[in-house]
Amino acid sequence: MATSLHYVLLLIVSAGLLDAAVLGDLVTSLPGLSFEPAWRHYSGYLNASGTKRLHYWFFESADSPSTDPVLLWMNGGPGCSSLVGLFTENGPFRVMLNGTVVYHEGSWNEIANVLYLEAPAGVGMSYSDDKYYRTNDDETASDNYLAIKDFFSKYPEYSKNSFYVTGESYGGIYVPTLSALVVRDPTINFKGMAIGNGMSNYDKNENAHVYLAYYHGLIGDSLWRDLINSCCNGTLEERCMFTLHQDRPHCKDAFNTAHHIVFEGQLNFYNVYHECRNSISLPVDKLKISMGCLDTTSVDRYLNTPEVRKAIHVPDFVPRWEVETPAVMLHYTEVYPDLSAQHREVLEAGKRIMMYNGDVDFACDFLGESWFVEDLGLELVSGRKMWYYTAQDGTTQVAGFITKYKNYDLVTVRGGGHLSPADKPFEVLQMMKNFLVGE
Amino acid sequence: MATSLHYVLLLIVSAGLLDAAVLGDLVTSLPGLSFEPAWRHYSGYLNASGTKRLHYWFFESADSPSTDPVLLWMNGGPGCSSLVGLFTENGPFRVMLNGTVVYHEGSWNEIANVLYLEAPAGVGMSYSDDKYYRTNDDETASDNYLAIKDFFSKYPEYSKNSFYVTGESYGGIYVPTLSALVVRDPTINFKGMAIGNGMSNYDKNENAHVYLAYYHGLIGDSLWRDLINSCCNGTLEERCMFTLHQDRPHCKDAFNTAHHIVFEGQLNFYNVYHECRNSISLPVDKLKISMGCLDTTSVDRYLNTPEVRKAIHVPDFVPRWEVETPAVMLHYTEVYPDLSAQHREVLEAGKRIMMYNGDVDFACDFLGESWFVEDLGLELVSGRKMWYYTAQDGTTQVAGFITKYKNYDLVTVRGGGHLSPADKPFEVLQMMKNFLVGE
Repeated sequence: MATSLHYVLLLIVSAGLLDAAVLGDLVTSLPGLSFEPAWRHYSGYLNASGTKRLHYWFFESADSPSTDPVLLWMNGGPGCSSLVGLFTENGPFRVMLNGTVVYHEGSWNEIANVLYLEAPAGVGMSYSDDKYYRTNDDETASDNYLAIKDFFSKYPEYSKNSFYVTGESYGGIYVPTLSALVVRDPTINFKGMAIGNGMSNYDKNENAHVYLAYYHGLIGDSLWRDLINSCCNGTLEERCMFTLHQDRPHCKDAFNTAHHIVFEGQLNFYNVYHECRNSISLPVDKLKISMGCLDTTSVDRYLNTPEVRKAIHVPDFVPRWEVETPAVMLHYTEVYPDLSAQHREVLEAGKRIMMYNGDVDFACDFLGESWFVEDLGLELVSGRKMWYYTAQDGTTQVAGFITKYKNYDLVTVRGGGHLSPADKPFEVLQMMKNFLVGE
Repeated sequence: MATSLHYVLLLIVSAGLLDAAVLGDLVTSLPGLSFEPAWRHYSGYLNASGTKRLHYWFFESADSPSTDPVLLWMNGGPGCSSLVGLFTENGPFRVMLNGTVVYHEGSWNEIANVLYLEAPAGVGMSYSDDKYYRTNDDETASDNYLAIKDFFSKYPEYSKNSFYVTGESYGGIYVPTLSALVVRDPTINFKGMAIGNGMSNYDKNENAHVYLAYYHGLIGDSLWRDLINSCCNGTLEERCMFTLHQDRPHCKDAFNTAHHIVFEGQLNFYNVYHECRNSISLPVDKLKISMGCLDTTSVDRYLNTPEVRKAIHVPDFVPRWEVETPAVMLHYTEVYPDLSAQHREVLEAGKRIMMYNGDVDFACDFLGESWFVEDLGLELVSGRKMWYYTAQDGTTQVAGFITKYKNYDLVTVRGGGHLSPADKPFEVLQMMKNFLVGE
């Protein structure tokens, strides 16, 4: 291993492929790694505004790094680390509880160069010297834009590749706000954006899931009737906005009851047909549970070992990694309740968009997203139909449904939850392939 | 094995526990069996009307056969074999493709004596000397009743045990029609009935699944609007009966389109989040696919080997076993479009009922059943709430939701499909335990 690595480094340097700064970010060995990657990956920092330094982890494509697109991936929150995406969703690494890192088939770097960015500053291993982490949607987008600029100046050989901004959940806000900045920059070869189970409009999302709760059997006939009577004037409406009638006491009570059933913590609202890991009867200090029912114990342990931090070039003064950073979450100002303007701006520049939703998620549900896209009033290219993927046993299976508008794909992932690349890796990889080749 | 079996037989006969006829039905060895059961099981025939002989397979309880209840189990169709229940749902046996029979944890005979009945005559290994298999709901109920009478006369020691009639799917008709006869017979210690994903009312079932299709993302906004406009006078109604407006051409077209998407065979409508085994790319003659996407290849092969037929006492003249028998299916007359009267008769006799639904089934969905139960106008005992089970990892998880009316439990099984004992064996076993102890 040492010899071959030495050889690779020599090759890289002698070929003049990398400058010294980038070579310093190259991850040359990773504790616990059980396989030898056929691709390079880099971990380090990108400059944002002021003293903010955003941690990134960049994976070259396993296929054709020089011609494959560059995909930026951002998890949501606000305040969640994108390394959750790397280690549990679309990245090539999975960490076992004993610290062994195994290869994950279905990683997006099978088809693209993937850049994981921990943002805003204060999240994960990103930091600012002034430790000021009070921020908002606009500043976050602006800092992410600066970090992307810094990335392409560090890796100029990738600036000719197609560039896509992707992410999920609160990424429904990060992705379009950043894309609206990137699209104005002619030096970036921006092609479009993809959002998974995103927050695109608070009202639509919050109200759609009440319908889904009833029609998935989470709330019953009696509560449903209460909701209709007290919030919707006694008639079932196609889009009753339960949340807009909270001044009516009965409506408020009924809505809160429904909300409590779905989100009280006993059901896994990220995937209503999965178990809830919160129920695990282990001592609390032994377990890192976060983001609803997700168990990130192994990732948390791994990323906080001194050896791993050193291997990924994290300075000693950076605080311990957390999947969610309260310092950011609690002081974050949400600016945009609806992202239509940003979606339109991307489309008007002739770029492409994909909105995909794992269809059993109640956090950011497919129905609210579908309402959001419908209200954009786009030109329909082909009506809703099934799309397919090849399962591990070689059979062709229905992966979900797709509606194609002009430059805009609205896609569901059958049986996927909030983190659909985690639940349905092969379906989602196929979907990304389809999107990238424009299918 | 031979020695211990001989010893067991000696014990049984010497203790005078069984008469000669029953002893002839005792299954003393089963090809491929990979474990030695701690309980006895019997396979043979029960007399119905005329020359009809219904095949049964009876499993003594692994717990306390003499005091545990006797549960009759019937699969649906009409024309499906109850051995599907035995070998893929709630029975103790699972057959591998190589013919090995392994033990299935979560079998209902862990808590009860379970009687699998192949009915009506013509189904599976049941037959009639006259080979006349044209029948209907009433005759089937009457023949099943005669078979039950014959069972208790063959096994008088079980006639003091509590007796429950259970089944699924078209069992939603078999179970209450049989129960309505059994409840009038004071010699049978009948306690109640349980129906899983049953057909209780055709109209409610057929129309409820249109709502579910939209709110599970199987049909999209555009088709949904077509359905509402053409079938429901342009307003979303709580229970629009799409099927009752088929005289309106647009409504008919829209309904057929929706129906086609759900049931066209590419989606597994028995569990919309499972793969569809129909897609398997194997030569058709090597594979026994039936009942939607269910793969019963191994069971079909196993039950048609001469050794197995001999071991379970099936005469040579009985045709080969099929999971569904066209001769029965195609000539069956459905008499009851609604089973309210039978449910009421059982309740009025003071007996108990459980209706349970795996909640991701589109064949007989939870919503139509919920409407059916609501319309019975029962006295509510406790409102809809979560019920729980202990998962294999020791955690407590939400197994579904339960509404309790007087002597009537309406239950969902979270993530269970049409065959929820197959999808969720431990949840369903817990649910049956709860029902049997009256919880």
